[in-house]
Amino acid sequence: MAGSAPWVLSQVQVVAEAVATVAFALSGVIEGARKRLDAVGICVVAGLAAFGGGTVRDVVLDRRPLFWVEHAGWLWALLALCIGAMAFMRARHLEPTERAMQWPDALGLGLFTASGTQIALDSGMPAIVAVLLGMVTAVFGGVLRDVVCNEIPRAFHDHRPYAICAFTGGWVLVATQAAGLDGGLALTLTALLTTGLRAAALVRDWRLPAWQAGRPD
Amino acid sequence: MAGSAPWVLSQVQVVAEAVATVAFALSGVIEGARKRLDAVGICVVAGLAAFGGGTVRDVVLDRRPLFWVEHAGWLWALLALCIGAMAFMRARHLEPTERAMQWPDALGLGLFTASGTQIALDSGMPAIVAVLLGMVTAVFGGVLRDVVCNEIPRAFHDHRPYAICAFTGGWVLVATQAAGLDGGLALTLTALLTTGLRAAALVRDWRLPAWQAGRPD
Amino acid sequence: MAGSAPWVLSQVQVVAEAVATVAFALSGVIEGARKRLDAVGICVVAGLAAFGGGTVRDVVLDRRPLFWVEHAGWLWALLALCIGAMAFMRARHLEPTERAMQWPDALGLGLFTASGTQIALDSGMPAIVAVLLGMVTAVFGGVLRDVVCNEIPRAFHDHRPYAICAFTGGWVLVATQAAGLDGGLALTLTALLTTGLRAAALVRDWRLPAWQAGRPD
Repeated sequence: MAGSAPWVLSQVQVVAEAVATVAFALSGVIEGARKRLDAVGICVVAGLAAFGGGTVRDVVLDRRPLFWVEHAGWLWALLALCIGAMAFMRARHLEPTERAMQWPDALGLGLFTASGTQIALDSGMPAIVAVLLGMVTAVFGGVLRDVVCNEIPRAFHDHRPYAICAFTGGWVLVATQAAGLDGGLALTLTALLTTGLRAAALVRDWRLPAWQAGRPD
Repeated sequence: MAGSAPWVLSQVQVVAEAVATVAFALSGVIEGARKRLDAVGICVVAGLAAFGGGTVRDVVLDRRPLFWVEHAGWLWALLALCIGAMAFMRARHLEPTERAMQWPDALGLGLFTASGTQIALDSGMPAIVAVLLGMVTAVFGGVLRDVVCNEIPRAFHDHRPYAICAFTGGWVLVATQAAGLDGGLALTLTALLTTGLRAAALVRDWRLPAWQAGRPD
Repeated sequence: MAGSAPWVLSQVQVVAEAVATVAFALSGVIEGARKRLDAVGICVVAGLAAFGGGTVRDVVLDRRPLFWVEHAGWLWALLALCIGAMAFMRARHLEPTERAMQWPDALGLGLFTASGTQIALDSGMPAIVAVLLGMVTAVFGGVLRDVVCNEIPRAFHDHRPYAICAFTGGWVLVATQAAGLDGGLALTLTALLTTGLRAAALVRDWRLPAWQAGRPD
C-alpha cells in the first residue's frame, strides 16, 4: 500500500462496505419476499445476505470482534432498512424482480471482492487464499441467503459468470499491489473491474462453459 | 447482577440450559422422524437442534471450549435421549406431531433466550448484539435442523411470532439488569416472559404483519 | 503414541488426508454435475466436500490457520483436479453414477475418521468429543455438499451405515491408543476398519434399524 494515507484508505473501505452491504441486504429482502417469508424471516435473510460473507471470512481468519459486532450501529441500520423496504414495497405495490436487483448486486459484488481480498491480504494470507476469501466475502452472503430459502445457490447454478468475476477481480488486487500501486487506487480499480465484468456478462449474456453430462438431454 | 449469589445464578443457568436442550433435541428427533431419516440422521439432527444455536453464538463470541466440549457428558445424555425417544415412539406407535412439540419448544425458546443473552452480555457485547445473540441461541438450532432437513426454517416462514418473542425477551433482560434487578430474577423474568409471549401467540393465533407482494395471489 | 516416530506418523497423516481429500472432491464434482451446476459451482461444491468436514472440526477446536490456508497448494491442486475431472468426463461422455463413487468415498471415510479423531485427541479433547469430531471430519464435507445442492444429506437418509462406521472407527483409535499401540499402526488400523465396515455394509446391503412412524404407510 505504498503512498496511500491509511486514513483515506480506511474511509474508502468503510464507504465501500456500507454500499455493498445495503445492496446485498436488499437482495435478501427481495428473495425473502418472493418466498413469502414473514417479516422476521425477511430481516434474518437480509442479514445473512449482507453480513454472511464477511462473517464466514472472519471466522476463517479468526478475526474478532466480527465487524457487525464492533460496529453494532450497522445492525440498527439493517433493521431500519428492512422495515423501510418492506413498507415501501407494500405501499407501492411493487413486485420485486430478480432483474431489478442485478445492478445493485453487481455493485456489491465488486465492492465486497475488493474489501474482502484486502482484509485477507492484511492478515498475511497467501495470494490464492486471499483471492478465495475475497470471493467468499462477495458470494457467500448470497449462498447462505439461498440455502436458507431452500434453493440451490444462484451463484453456482445460473451459468452466468458471477463468482468468477470476483475471483478475477481478486487477482487484479493482488497484481496491482504487487506492482506497487497505491492502495486506494488498487481497491477502486478492483471494485470497478469486478463490477464491470459482471455488468458486461449480464448485458452481453455471457455463459460459463457449461459442464454437460454425456447423455443428451 | 447486583445482589445475586453467582453460584445460584450459575445453577439456574445450568438447569435452564438442560431443560431447553432436551426440548430442542426432542424437536429434532420428531422432525427427523417425520422426514424418515435413519437412526444416525435423527441423532445428528437432534444434536443440531439442541446445540446448534449455542454453538453459533460461541463461534461468534470466540468462546472456547464450546459448552458441549467442556461438558462432554451432555453428548452422552443426548445420545441416550435420542435412543430412548426412538424406542418409546416405536413401542407406543406414536406419530409425532408438530402440535405436540409446541409447548416444550416454547419453554426452550424462553430459557435459551435468557441464557444466551446473559452469556453475550457477560462477554461485554453491546445490547443490540447481546439481544441478537440471545435470539440466535434460541432460534438457530431450529434453523439448522430445518436447513439440514431441506425445509425453509419454520421460524422464518409460519407467520407466527417466534424469533420476535426471543428478540423482545432479550430486551427485557437488558432493561431489567440496567435497572439493577437481581441477576437470577432478571433471567427468570426474561424466560417466563418469552415463553409466555410465545404461548399467547399460539393460543390466540397471533399473526405477524405479513409482508405481501403487490399483485393479488 | 508410544514408540512411534513423529515424522513417520505425520507423513502417514499427510498422505491419508491427500487421498481422502481427492476422493471427497470427486464426490463433489459428480454431485455438482448431476445437479447441472455450472463450472464454478462444481468447483465450490467439490471444495466444500473435500475441506468442509475438516474446516468445521478446526472451527470447533479453534485451530488456526486452517489446513487449507496453511497448505495453500491444496487449493491449486483442488482447482486442477476439478478442471481435469470436468474435462475428462466431457471427453469420455461419462455419466457419473453414485455407484461408481462408493468405493473411493469409503476410502475417504476411513482416512478422514482416523486423521480427524487423532487431531482432536492431540488437542486434548475427551474421548467422546474426539470420536464425534472424527465423524464430523469424515461426514460433514458430504453434508455441506448435499445441503448446498438442496438435498437431505445422504449420510442421514439412506438407511445404510455410513456415519456410524466413522463413529465405530473413532472408538477403535481411542481404544488402541489407550492400549499403548503405536500411533501409526493405530491410525492405519482405524482407517482400514472404518473403510472395511463401510465396504461390508455396501456389499452385504446392511440396513440401519429404521425408526418407523406408528401409522402404516
